[in-house]
Amino acid sequence: MLELYDRSCYLVNKMTNDTMNQRSRARRHPRADGERTRGAILRAAASLATVDGLEGLSIGNLAAATGMSKSGLYAHFGSKAELQLATVEEAERIFLGEVVRPAHAAPPGRAQLVAVCEAFFDYLQRRTFPGGCFFAAAALEMGTRPGPVKKRVAALQAGFDALIRGFAATALEQHELPAREDPDRLAFELYGIMLAANVSFVLHDDPAVLNLARQVVHQRLGLGNGGNAGER
Amino acid sequence: MLELYDRSCYLVNKMTNDTMNQRSRARRHPRADGERTRGAILRAAASLATVDGLEGLSIGNLAAATGMSKSGLYAHFGSKAELQLATVEEAERIFLGEVVRPAHAAPPGRAQLVAVCEAFFDYLQRRTFPGGCFFAAAALEMGTRPGPVKKRVAALQAGFDALIRGFAATALEQHELPAREDPDRLAFELYGIMLAANVSFVLHDDPAVLNLARQVVHQRLGLGNGGNAGER
Repeated sequence: MLELYDRSCYLVNKMTNDTMNQRSRARRHPRADGERTRGAILRAAASLATVDGLEGLSIGNLAAATGMSKSGLYAHFGSKAELQLATVEEAERIFLGEVVRPAHAAPPGRAQLVAVCEAFFDYLQRRTFPGGCFFAAAALEMGTRPGPVKKRVAALQAGFDALIRGFAATALEQHELPAREDPDRLAFELYGIMLAANVSFVLHDDPAVLNLARQVVHQRLGLGNGGNAGER
Repeated sequence: MLELYDRSCYLVNKMTNDTMNQRSRARRHPRADGERTRGAILRAAASLATVDGLEGLSIGNLAAATGMSKSGLYAHFGSKAELQLATVEEAERIFLGEVVRPAHAAPPGRAQLVAVCEAFFDYLQRRTFPGGCFFAAAALEMGTRPGPVKKRVAALQAGFDALIRGFAATALEQHELPAREDPDRLAFELYGIMLAANVSFVLHDDPAVLNLARQVVHQRLGLGNGGNAGER
């Protein structure tokens, strides 16, 4: 348990220091113009990538989407590979801010498990990206393409899984879950519920699937019956 | 319950008559040469689509992958849209054969829930498609692209969900699951476990995630503890 908790702390730090990188910290202070422009371009690139794929991303279609000149974009990103990686980093910054940060703000243990799932469903519902969760799509798209982009996406996914496992381990230590529960298996299930919500919401565009997902999470974590959870 | 069961029967029939279409039935008899060629091309196209995406599929790269001439392929498929739709139909035939059919072969109820999950994990493990589950990838890729291809993918997903709900309803009728279980929620969870297995297997290429997924399913359905389930 302690090991898992330590691992979770490590990930929190990693997620705060490593991936919540300089651009993120710069948000608290006014960005230099160049930084703001780069951020805006990358935000557009991340949205575009959930429609056309990371492989579909090019200096050309990004120029069309942002109204910037190709030469201006080349000044920011020397190559398609560099643009892809910067786009993944921007998507990571958004994901950490919208999904991971609200979870950390909740009381340790089961409340964090609920919070991370809720934050994920909210992130889908507010259509942060037009094509659903950036990383769910990027994982499947880049799965057969070894390289730094896939590596980064895989690291984010592994970190997110470890974070949920850490929350589950804390919940178990605090006796908020039955002793038979296993953090690895529970994290896998909750991650699956998030992915099922993502696919169903992307395909059917119906917020009812997110309400069903919320009920499933509440019931799975022993918080009232599904009916009550659905009425909240 | 009866309604759900009826819906399940409807889907079984739909899946057998509608989507297990002529090409599938023709497999039991020798195919005409043209049919065999078309089937081989579409199988290659479906594999290619899990690497380059359905949008990345073109007569050009399919010609390169199959060693056929572009003009030969144009004779089979008049347009990219027609090729995409035929590819989805072929992937559907494969999915029904590898995942749905083994589930129908199991005794009704909980055994079918286990069987459909097991068949899905086996389909991943034998790398039927290089990029994991064809439909998990296609759903996210086509999510923002309304049209006949998205419609077909959404219908397959909805049919698969209804099939699992039907199995769950039967399991409940047979008292194989606690009365508090709800077919909609349970189907959502099991579908999520399949999706989590798919993403993790695609990203980390490690059969251990499939064993974890098998344990999760066994425990979730009350079949021994996770440890025992893992030893089978």
